[in-house]
Amino acid sequence: MKLIKSIQEMRSWTLKQKQLGKTIGFVPTMGFLHQGHLSLVKKARLQNDAVVLSIFVNPMQFGPKEDFSVYPRDLEKDSLLAAGAGVDLIFYPDISEIYPQYPPLTSVEVQGITEELCGKSRPGHFTGVATIVTKLLNIVQPQSAYFGQKDYQQYLVIRQLANDLNMPISIEMAPIVREEDGLAMSSRNAYLSPVEREEALALNQALEICHRLYLSGEDRIIPLVEAIRTRLLQVPSLKIDYIEIRGAADLGQLTVIDVSAVVAIAAYIGKTRLIDNLLLEVD
Amino acid sequence: MKLIKSIQEMRSWTLKQKQLGKTIGFVPTMGFLHQGHLSLVKKARLQNDAVVLSIFVNPMQFGPKEDFSVYPRDLEKDSLLAAGAGVDLIFYPDISEIYPQYPPLTSVEVQGITEELCGKSRPGHFTGVATIVTKLLNIVQPQSAYFGQKDYQQYLVIRQLANDLNMPISIEMAPIVREEDGLAMSSRNAYLSPVEREEALALNQALEICHRLYLSGEDRIIPLVEAIRTRLLQVPSLKIDYIEIRGAADLGQLTVIDVSAVVAIAAYIGKTRLIDNLLLEVD
Repeated sequence: MKLIKSIQEMRSWTLKQKQLGKTIGFVPTMGFLHQGHLSLVKKARLQNDAVVLSIFVNPMQFGPKEDFSVYPRDLEKDSLLAAGAGVDLIFYPDISEIYPQYPPLTSVEVQGITEELCGKSRPGHFTGVATIVTKLLNIVQPQSAYFGQKDYQQYLVIRQLANDLNMPISIEMAPIVREEDGLAMSSRNAYLSPVEREEALALNQALEICHRLYLSGEDRIIPLVEAIRTRLLQVPSLKIDYIEIRGAADLGQLTVIDVSAVVAIAAYIGKTRLIDNLLLEVD
Repeated sequence: MKLIKSIQEMRSWTLKQKQLGKTIGFVPTMGFLHQGHLSLVKKARLQNDAVVLSIFVNPMQFGPKEDFSVYPRDLEKDSLLAAGAGVDLIFYPDISEIYPQYPPLTSVEVQGITEELCGKSRPGHFTGVATIVTKLLNIVQPQSAYFGQKDYQQYLVIRQLANDLNMPISIEMAPIVREEDGLAMSSRNAYLSPVEREEALALNQALEICHRLYLSGEDRIIPLVEAIRTRLLQVPSLKIDYIEIRGAADLGQLTVIDVSAVVAIAAYIGKTRLIDNLLLEVD
């Protein structure tokens, strides 16, 4: 497995793959890899001749009071995990390589699906995401790029921008990977104390309660949201950021689930902000 | 010469050129071609194996009170001129092909060099330009793209975004092409009545006065701008939009010309807005 830090070397490698007629699958990450990331690698591995994984903790998608400086980093462990999962190349640029000028003058903005849910409590976050993903896609030039369902709104934003900007790249999603007890895998789980780790289970459990209620015939948004809220409020130290049930295609408002929907939760456990979601498919 | 209207066919053609190892030079235009456009084609022709010219009057870069609906169009004449200049393919998409949803949710924003000069009197214009050029570059995937010095601020914006978004594309500029009497070529010259056509010469003449004054040793911005203003004010029907002398690299403010500078003018002759500029090189 190769490790490349410079954009120029990355481009040369891509060019060489293309000349050999090889397709590239790309998994952009912020590192501190877990099984969620590796499930994306696995999918990329199945669908492409070569797999590139990038590790870049992108300052532009963190708010001034967010956890950029303490975001967990472990290149050595990441390299072992990536190599084991079949990654051919890790692209690991420095901040100055990606942003010779910071903040950059150019940004990519996506309207309509970025203002609410995570966008509401993280102003500027999706502009940072859209801009870095555009940059990385232009550097790596893959045929396909892979994103986790756990950041469902992020997936929608990236699918939208790739489509709107006519990028010749397929944007793929893979399901949430969970710990055995149901907690959605996240690099930020490393922040949790053992007690908080236990409390964090409320997120998935609340989603499961919602799911069962839906399967039992309840399709109205208000009681479904209330069932989630009730479960989350059982954890005194948990602070709800949002509970939303929206159209899965465009995050549009619903009153009943008459189209495929995403049930999305964000909550603070102590100082750690966690998100989780559930897709309810309607044929 | 081929004429292609669909993005999918355009992509197939590009892919074929790449498989043949051919480089593509790209000249994006709004059509109604003149010698200015053809000079870009000539440069592209010299530097590439194949030349694509696009014709798309982009609604997103016109303000609500601007001339989108009346902007001149003549595909038949454009085709003859393009073929004669050595264009291999005209990409001529419909609005619905480029914008399945209008306005699009995604836009490309460039800060710092878009707020002043043309950006001041045309709010949103450069967002429209940056977005359409990003889309066209992603569709055509050229090695190089060619822009005229006449829209100098536009050239800077595109160079900046291509750089900031890590597009693997070289952004090239070619000098202003003028009529024999000095008027900068522009599709909008077609709006001018014979009297206005005569009055429009003031723009280039004012730039020439400025140039001579500079060559005679005057390097302070204020007297240089005043000399331009004096010449323009001799035309009663001319309304000055702006007269600016800025750093050529980043449109930064200057008090004396101690770095390479652009002298840029925008003025209305009747209802027609014209622009012109002059580069003053400093070693």
